[in-house]
This record gives sequence, C-alpha cells and structure tokens, in this order.
Amino acid sequence: MYELGVVYRRIERADRRDTEALAALGSATVHEAMGRVGLMKPYMRPIYAGAQVSGTAVTVLLHPGDNWMLHVAAEQIEPGDLVVAALTSECTDGYFGDLLATSFKARGARALVIDAGVRDVKTLTEMQFPVWSRAISAKGTIKATLGSVNIPVVCAGMLVHPGDAIVADDDGVVCVPRDRLAQTLTAARAREANEGAKRTQLAQGVLGLDMYKMREPLEKAGLRYID
Amino acid sequence: MYELGVVYRRIERADRRDTEALAALGSATVHEAMGRVGLMKPYMRPIYAGAQVSGTAVTVLLHPGDNWMLHVAAEQIEPGDLVVAALTSECTDGYFGDLLATSFKARGARALVIDAGVRDVKTLTEMQFPVWSRAISAKGTIKATLGSVNIPVVCAGMLVHPGDAIVADDDGVVCVPRDRLAQTLTAARAREANEGAKRTQLAQGVLGLDMYKMREPLEKAGLRYID
Amino acid sequence: MYELGVVYRRIERADRRDTEALAALGSATVHEAMGRVGLMKPYMRPIYAGAQVSGTAVTVLLHPGDNWMLHVAAEQIEPGDLVVAALTSECTDGYFGDLLATSFKARGARALVIDAGVRDVKTLTEMQFPVWSRAISAKGTIKATLGSVNIPVVCAGMLVHPGDAIVADDDGVVCVPRDRLAQTLTAARAREANEGAKRTQLAQGVLGLDMYKMREPLEKAGLRYID
Amino acid sequence: MYELGVVYRRIERADRRDTEALAALGSATVHEAMGRVGLMKPYMRPIYAGAQVSGTAVTVLLHPGDNWMLHVAAEQIEPGDLVVAALTSECTDGYFGDLLATSFKARGARALVIDAGVRDVKTLTEMQFPVWSRAISAKGTIKATLGSVNIPVVCAGMLVHPGDAIVADDDGVVCVPRDRLAQTLTAARAREANEGAKRTQLAQGVLGLDMYKMREPLEKAGLRYID
Amino acid sequence: MYELGVVYRRIERADRRDTEALAALGSATVHEAMGRVGLMKPYMRPIYAGAQVSGTAVTVLLHPGDNWMLHVAAEQIEPGDLVVAALTSECTDGYFGDLLATSFKARGARALVIDAGVRDVKTLTEMQFPVWSRAISAKGTIKATLGSVNIPVVCAGMLVHPGDAIVADDDGVVCVPRDRLAQTLTAARAREANEGAKRTQLAQGVLGLDMYKMREPLEKAGLRYID
Amino acid sequence: MYELGVVYRRIERADRRDTEALAALGSATVHEAMGRVGLMKPYMRPIYAGAQVSGTAVTVLLHPGDNWMLHVAAEQIEPGDLVVAALTSECTDGYFGDLLATSFKARGARALVIDAGVRDVKTLTEMQFPVWSRAISAKGTIKATLGSVNIPVVCAGMLVHPGDAIVADDDGVVCVPRDRLAQTLTAARAREANEGAKRTQLAQGVLGLDMYKMREPLEKAGLRYID
Repeated sequence: MYELGVVYRRIERADRRDTEALAALGSATVHEAMGRVGLMKPYMRPIYAGAQVSGTAVTVLLHPGDNWMLHVAAEQIEPGDLVVAALTSECTDGYFGDLLATSFKARGARALVIDAGVRDVKTLTEMQFPVWSRAISAKGTIKATLGSVNIPVVCAGMLVHPGDAIVADDDGVVCVPRDRLAQTLTAARAREANEGAKRTQLAQGVLGLDMYKMREPLEKAGLRYID
Repeated sequence: MYELGVVYRRIERADRRDTEALAALGSATVHEAMGRVGLMKPYMRPIYAGAQVSGTAVTVLLHPGDNWMLHVAAEQIEPGDLVVAALTSECTDGYFGDLLATSFKARGARALVIDAGVRDVKTLTEMQFPVWSRAISAKGTIKATLGSVNIPVVCAGMLVHPGDAIVADDDGVVCVPRDRLAQTLTAARAREANEGAKRTQLAQGVLGLDMYKMREPLEKAGLRYID
Repeated sequence: MYELGVVYRRIERADRRDTEALAALGSATVHEAMGRVGLMKPYMRPIYAGAQVSGTAVTVLLHPGDNWMLHVAAEQIEPGDLVVAALTSECTDGYFGDLLATSFKARGARALVIDAGVRDVKTLTEMQFPVWSRAISAKGTIKATLGSVNIPVVCAGMLVHPGDAIVADDDGVVCVPRDRLAQTLTAARAREANEGAKRTQLAQGVLGLDMYKMREPLEKAGLRYID
Repeated sequence: MYELGVVYRRIERADRRDTEALAALGSATVHEAMGRVGLMKPYMRPIYAGAQVSGTAVTVLLHPGDNWMLHVAAEQIEPGDLVVAALTSECTDGYFGDLLATSFKARGARALVIDAGVRDVKTLTEMQFPVWSRAISAKGTIKATLGSVNIPVVCAGMLVHPGDAIVADDDGVVCVPRDRLAQTLTAARAREANEGAKRTQLAQGVLGLDMYKMREPLEKAGLRYID
Repeated sequence: MYELGVVYRRIERADRRDTEALAALGSATVHEAMGRVGLMKPYMRPIYAGAQVSGTAVTVLLHPGDNWMLHVAAEQIEPGDLVVAALTSECTDGYFGDLLATSFKARGARALVIDAGVRDVKTLTEMQFPVWSRAISAKGTIKATLGSVNIPVVCAGMLVHPGDAIVADDDGVVCVPRDRLAQTLTAARAREANEGAKRTQLAQGVLGLDMYKMREPLEKAGLRYID
Repeated sequence: MYELGVVYRRIERADRRDTEALAALGSATVHEAMGRVGLMKPYMRPIYAGAQVSGTAVTVLLHPGDNWMLHVAAEQIEPGDLVVAALTSECTDGYFGDLLATSFKARGARALVIDAGVRDVKTLTEMQFPVWSRAISAKGTIKATLGSVNIPVVCAGMLVHPGDAIVADDDGVVCVPRDRLAQTLTAARAREANEGAKRTQLAQGVLGLDMYKMREPLEKAGLRYID
C-alpha cells in the first residue's frame, strides 16, 4: 500500500484549537466518543507516566533498523504537530534519542509516537519530551534506505493520515481522522460533562446497577441470584 | 478510523484476470514487485500447507468474540472474492468453522484471511478451503454487535480496501491495491521471468557474488577477507 | 492452591462410554455444548495434525525443568485415561519423549496434554501417540522435586479435576467436568444432529442470514446497506 | 468448568484479621509459606509501584470485550474485599476505569486484580486505588453477555475461590485458600521473623554459603573450584 | 562482542565423520550427551517436518532486514557444511528463498539455521532443503550493510563457533563445540545403545518407577500415596 | 557449550578505572562506540528508573527454577563487580530478593543483570540496588542443581566473558569485552564530546538534514518532495 521515497510538504492539518482540546479529554474518552475505534494496539506505552498530549500528525514510514526519514520528517514539523512513525516490518531498535528530540522540540513537536524502540529515555524524561513506543532499546540505526513522509501509514494497527488529530496519555494513543474531529470533540465533551455527576453518585455508594438501570436487562438476560 | 454498522454493497473490484494471475506468482514475488510493501504481519499462517490463491477482497470488521458480520459478509461475496476480516481489538477466538466455510465456498469465495482464530480446521483441510489466521481455537463467538462490511480495514498491520487484490500462500498474505495491480503484475512477471536463468546458474555453482556483481561494492564497503 | 508430594490412587473417573463418545464430536462442538467454556488456551497445539481423542484425566503437577512425577503418574494410568500435566511456573523444556510414550501407551493412555514442551516428536508421530503441548524442545529435565498426581490442576488456563473427561483435536483441548458429562454429551449430540441439514442448505447457497433469520435483528441493531 | 449467569450472594470469607495481616508480609513471603504455590502468572503487574494490599476475594467471570458483570460484582463487595476478575478467553481491553473504581472504593474494595486491561490509570493512581492487570488499554467494553459472580475462577493461571485471601504487591499476586490461611500466616510469620537476623549477618559480609551451610552439599554435588 | 566486516576463510571444521554421525542420533540424545546444554531456543522450528541433519557450521552475522552476507557466506561453504545465521537485533524478515537455497545446495550445504525469517518455503520443501528458522515471511531484504562470516555468533541464545558440529531435527537445533565432539558422540551412542532395552521393557508394561529404581528416592523425598 | 559444576576463582577483570568511566557515558553511546553491537535483548529492563551503573562481570549459569549458584557467585564478587546471570533455559521465576541483594551489596557488587525474574523489588528499590531482569516474580526457587560461576555465558542473547565490562541504564545493558574496553572508551568519549555542540545547534532549530549534510545523499537516493 505504501508509496516509497516521497515527502508530501503540504498536508491539511486538523483544526488547531479542536486538536488542542483533545488532550484534556484523554484517550479513553475520545476513543469512546469515536464509537470505540481509533486506538493503537496497547503495546504502545509512554516512556514516562503522566504525559497527556494532543497534536496533528506528521507521518513517517521507516524501514527496520533505519531512521533516516526521521531527519527528513523534522523539517516538515510545525508547532503543534506530533510525529507518528510506522515501520515496514517489526523492529525494536532505538530509532530516536535526545538529539532528535531536541530537534523535534525546537520545531514545535508535541511528542513522538513510534511503532519501534527509542533510547536516551532518561534524558527524554528530563526534557519532558513524551514518547509512546513499543520498546526501549539502546540499539542504534543506520541511514541507508528511503521511506516516506506524510503518506497514510498503519502505526500499531491503526491507520493514520497526515494531519489527523492524535491524543495520547497513560491509557494509549488514539487517532481522530481530520474530518471527524469536530463531531468527536462534541461527543467527547458531552461524555465528559456527564461523568462528574455519575462520579459523585458512585462515590456516595449508589450502584451502577441502579444508576445505569441494569437490573431489568440483567434479569431478562437470565441472571440468577443464589443465596 | 472505522465507520460502524454499514455494508457497502457496490465495490469496485480489481480486474478479475489480473487478480487471478497473482496466485501463480506467489506472495514473495508480488511483494517484491510492489517495492517490498503490502505484506501482512508474519503471524498470519495458513491452516494447512500448500495452498496458493488470489482473489478480490471483501472486507469485514469484527468485534472481539463476535462473528455476526461474517454472515453479513457472505451475502456480498461474488465468485473470485476472498474475505479479509479485521478486528477492533486482538482476539484469538474461533470465528469461522466448517458451516461458514460451506457457505463461503457456495458463494464462490477463494479463501478467508482473518486476524483472529478459526476452528474445524480438520474439516476445512478436507474441504480444501484455505484460511490464513493468527490462531486456531475451538472457542466459539456470539452474534451481538455490529461491525461493517466493505469498508477499508487494517488486517494484521496492512491496510486493505474492498476490491483490492489479495495473494496468499505458505509465505504469507500480500495486498495489492486495485489501482496498482496492473503495474505490479507487470513487475512481478518481469521478476519471475528473470529467476529461471538465475536458478540454472546458481544450480551449476555460480556464486551470487559473481552473478549479481557484488564483489566490488562489498570491497568498497570495506569487507576484509582473512586467511 | 496446590497440595504437593501426594498421589491420589483412587479417583472417580467419568463414565467410560460417555467419555469415549466425545472424541467423534470434537472439541468445538463439545465446547459449545458446555455453554462455550472449558477450552484450554489456544497455545496448546497437537504435535501432528489429525488426531482426535478423548479420555479420563489423570492429572500431574510438575515443577519447571523436572519430569519426575510423570513416572509416578504412569503407574496411575488405566486404559482409557489421558494424562493432563500442569506446571507450577512456565517452562518449555521437553518433559516427555518416546520412552515415556512407550510406557504410557503400554498402560493404556490415549494421549498426553502438557502445559510445557515435549521431544522425540518424530518418533511420537510414527507411534501415533498424540500429544498437545505448548512447545517442542529437545531440552531434557531432571528428577529432583516432588509434585503431585491426581490433584485438581490448572492446565493452560483451565481447571481439570482427576477423572474429568477430556477431548482434544486439531482445534484444541476441552475439559468436561465429570458431573456435567451426560448433559454435555446430550447437548453436543443435539448440536451435531442439527448441523447436517444446515450444511446441505448452505452448500446450496442458502445464506446464514436467512437460515438463522438474522435480517430482522441486524436491522433492529441499526445495520445500514449502502449501494 | 464454569457456571454462567449466576451470582452467589453468600460466600464464606477468609478470616478478616488474618487476611489483613497478609499485606505486611508481602506476596513473596506468603507464596513461600504456601510451599511455593499460589502465585498468579508474572504478567500480572501493578498499574503503579508501591501498593501492597490484601483482601478477601469477590470473583467475577467476564467475556472478552464485555464488562457488564463488574457492575453486578460491585453490589457483592463488602469492606475488606478485593475483586478478582477472570476471562473466558484472552483480552486486553480496558474493562475498568475511574468510575467503576469510585464505586468499588465506596463499597470498601481494597483493589482489583483482573486478567485483562484497565484504563484511566492516571486517575486511578491519583485515587490510590491499586489494580493488578495484564494490560493497560483505553479500549472500552460493551455490556451484553452474562458471566458470573462468586464462582471459582482461574485468573492468570491460578484457581481462586470466592472468599479466598489475596495478597498483592510489586512482586505479584498470591491466592491463599480460605482453609489454609491460618497455617500459611503462621508459616509466613516464622519465615519473616527469621529474616531480620539473616539480613544483619549478610550485611556484615557473612556469605550465604556459610550461613546456610551450603559448602558441604555443593561439594557432594561435585562442585569444583578452579584457580 | 562482534567483529564486523570480516570473512574468515580458513576455519577448523569438526571431524567430518563424527559430525555426520550426529544426524542419526538426533538433537535430544546429543543434547543429553552434552550434559543437557547446547540447545538453541525452542522458537527455532523446521519449515517442514521430518528432516534430520548434521553439519559443520559456517557462521554468518546479519543486520535486521539485510541479507547481503548470506551471499558472501555461500562462497565459504564446503560440502557437509551447514550455515548458521545470527542477527544483530531481532527481525522476522524473509532472508532466504529458493535462489539462495539452490546456490547453497550446489555448494554442498546441508541446511540453514537462521534466527530470522525465510520464504519460498513451498519450493524449499519440494527441493528438500531443510531450514530451521524463527519465522516464515515473504518480506524481502536489502543488501547494504556489512556483517561478518565465520566469526563466533550467538544464534537463538546459543554460542556457535565456525566449524562447530550442528545437529537439527524436529526437536530443535543443538551445537556441539568442535573440541567436545568426540566425547559427545561416545556419550550419545552409549545413551542410544541403552534405550532399546528400556523401550522393550516399558512396552511390556514395566514401570519407569521400577526400571529406574525411583520408588526409594521418591519415598525419601516424602511422597505420600493416598487411597 | 557450557561447562557445568565449576567455579573459576581467578578471572582477569577489565581495567577498573576504564570500567567505572563507562557508567557516565551510558549504554547507547557505548553501544555505538562498539560499532553498534554488544547490547542485550531489549526485554532486559531495570526494576526502577534512573539507575546508571558499570562494573566488571562475574558470570553465573543457572538452571530453571534453581538459584543455588547465586550463593556460590556471591563469594567471587569483588568491589566494583556486577553479576551477570544466564539460564540454561527460559524461566521467569524470582531468583533474587532482598537477602541476596544485601549479601551482594556487602561484597561490593554494583548491580545484578539476570535473564530471569527477581522479587522484593520494593525493598531493592529502597536499598537502591539496581537490577536488570526479564521479569518480576514472587515465585521462589530451589537449590538442587549445579551450574557454574565465571564461565562464558550467553545472557539475553549476548556473549559475556567473566571480567568483561558491563554498562547498564534505562536504555538497556551493554557488554564490552575486556580487550576492547580501552578503544571503546576512547570512541565513546569522542562521540560524547561531539554531542554537546550538535545539541546546541539542533536546539536552535538547525535541521539534522543540514547539520549532517543529508540533503545530497537523500536526493541521490531518489527522494522526491511533493507540494
């Protein structure tokens, strides 16, 4: 499916303000608002706990053991972007360290999401440059083969188009297609608004069984209580 | 990224004759002809050795533990199709067995490619209905939640659009986008044509080092021979 | 949960004739008849394709790298039994080979199900002594630590009591508790009886959508067809 | 093995005071005191470091992608309980988040142990509601199929009966059957009492070789020192 | 540990006749005769069942996604050799197919053992050129980076020196260091000679408990029989 | 390959001062300075974040589920050593806890690197005794079978000789052979010296494309920019 050796310089980015708004909502709420789709595979983990970010995707396609295109991607970053790196086949090598992070940060990148390994995680943590990856590895990479920048990629099982909105936190990474961002944001906010009241009730000991009116459907489904 | 609860009845299928021609070439040759992309992850394995097929993709999106949409997909199968089933999250349950295989075969399906488990593999083998899957499991599924049919899906890491050409054999499963089929076929045939002569030379003891003229570039790269 | 260093010589075995009858039904049908429970994890694979057996469980608990108790278990085997071996922690070593298989066979064992590795698989295949295991490995084991024989064990995620009925084939391994065997057999046969007619219909091109009357529930669930 | 669609309201819980006492001893000491059994598989990890808890098990059996029964379980929680959730087949979806945690906490639950995924881990960490799970995932679940509450379950390879005592910390999760709690506690305390003196000796440079009198058995076993 | 960019042309090969003799003994017997060491990790599997071979190791070190050095290795093959390919980091790409197999065979190679993927397995099976690998994958590789030939390598967890004797069959792959071959062969033959008599006894129903005189040590270890 | 039942008391350790110097450089820089080799597999993870140590290797070979030789190894530790423990087959049991850590620390050990599990991680963290392991597990081990101390071992895929220099941090574990330490240190320092200036430039927004002069080679390789 992949076009190799190309860099698309002009991409249509999702609305900046709407994209920013995703971070506070978090990956779980956004994923639910999308109709429970859009989540990358759960092997994608943050290198440190607590980061919660969103940004517009600059996508990169990389070959196993080769990080050349990350340098090419750096030039395409605009403030508010988040780099999403996919691979042509599985690899856990450390494609990204503190030098590239310094460069990405200087260009305005919010984070890196990469379906491979990264290194210098102690320094990245000190820099507070968040990364979601499938592995941590000191193994370096070469610069020999062309991939592409800003083509549609499959990263950790999820299709990402350049310009899509990405939200990432301790629960994982979710991709919101550009043309579904507004409706997703509305749905996510509605969901969020709803949760405060529920939390108060549950904290007082009200059961979800009653709050969500589950007793009748459970009975219909045949649930039996035995004393 | 996924639209849920829809069935696209009209899809544009890749050229029938060109699609048929892929089977004889095999997944490795076709994948090379594509520029070394298009292969699903190698955990996708055939349930029996030796099958080598191609077909146009009817795609299905399934939920974990729920095979309802495979029945919906059956109706959309035309002779020469091959069903590609993706999941919204990882699952190894047995979504498909001899009854569905009987139905798919009656509709003209060539094979099933599913990023989940299948069962009745002894009978499927006797029927010679080929399946590529990530698991074999007797675990049954329910029929409760809507997925979709004939939307673009990510199956085993690869994006598949309905109507794309699929080729599958013992080496794996490759997806050829509909609009790249003709050029891929040409390139694959050229590659294939080339191989007979090479095989003869190699069988006579000629070294790849000489046949591919690698000695010079190896020397330039700094290779040292030590006696 | 485990009592160590004990061998229960008297176990109550599931009814012999009912246990025998499970083999022809197969793991998928029996598992469905149980209400879709009882299946060991799908990493349990047969060492060769095509075996389909059932038997009453003689259980063994083993330590990592130690197969001593398999020799103790051999003495407890009666014709029609099937040995189920669990481990106190994960190990892929080769606990069982052609000598133990010769012994087990001589005692009347139908098969071995082991949550570890086995070896001599070429010879075991020639002997047609079926084994379901998590691995194949030439790595030998020692004889130093006591486990137990005929206590309840958890094998590949499933609880097995001594005397339970086990059915195993290419789709996996299912455990039927002794006191649920009769009802399970009845349900499995009913299911089986039902399948012949369905297969004929499906082979003639009737769709599951119609045969199972799924069109209405799908519509109610909101499925939309788009032309 | 599983009975589906039932909730046992009356369970016999392990002695409260003895159960509480397990937390301070920790999973490793308790597991040794049991004769080195009772530990769930090591893929069960805490969502944050440092929690060390014990409680009586309320068990739940869940289907892949369906968390309905967690709401049913909430009603069965009594102060001092700890919920143990098992699955009918493997799944990493996020079954549990901050709302359910609020409810569980209000009911007096000490923790959740679940052989699946959870989400909202940042909030759970802030709430200091400890969870041991096999995964972290933003993926939501549906509420469609009945499992059971307070039946014996196999969770991460370990059999847990409702009312059993559970101890969990950074080293893992151990189940102590109700009728073995008193003797286990005695043995664990004896072990613990013993360790202080050993630690002092080892800190002073005394070797385990001498403290445990291993030199003779090592020599008997044939150990050779080479200078 | 690895020296890169070198090819050692002169290696000392293990005794040819002794190496040949290993094949008939098989990996399990040879591994036992070594004192239960020497086995590669059990994820190394044959691409087809039934092959049982031995040979002297020509070793290759490869980079992820790059098979250049396999061509360099081909020239170093002498009749009776077996190529052992290790990687600098994990990769499942298809490094080896029917053309390289034709070349290796023409040079006299007995088999390939590779800690990566291979392809064209249908053709390799027809050619009866045996391969042990960690994966099967149609994914091709590039020819860009120097590794080495005939340096010591770690393949699937086992250290292999060029010239070591390798034996491989359905149970796995074992490496016998050159200087331990004679004694290993003697021990393996003794073990083998021993097994015929044992097999006969066991087939007649004699228990291992009696044949190996285990009853006393089991009793001493505290085994209790309960009726 | 392994010699069993031996303890080499005299090993030649890498230069102390050079070994100490590796810690500040870190695993990624050292691994690059070695020519991108020497790294253990990335499944080796620190039990707590932030530790960065180096030491000379005392090696141990252990059997699955048996930690006897760790006590034997303790006696061979000299101040500045770091224990590297390999296994004869895969195991995740908890071989090492706070008592052994107290002993190792008293002997002057810097850390433990073990291709298995450890426990008491909360206490180890409080003690600030760093461990890199493949797992955390409360599962205890026995003391029954002889391994060896100070023989060459393969740990997490990497060959380690006794006396080699080891450096470990959040990015992983690297082994520097004793006779390559001086040159590696020189290369690593050169690399390090280089990085400060690069970091400053990148922080100012200079692109790697320009700083590393990549534009020309990328163009030569055929990279196309599309607006």
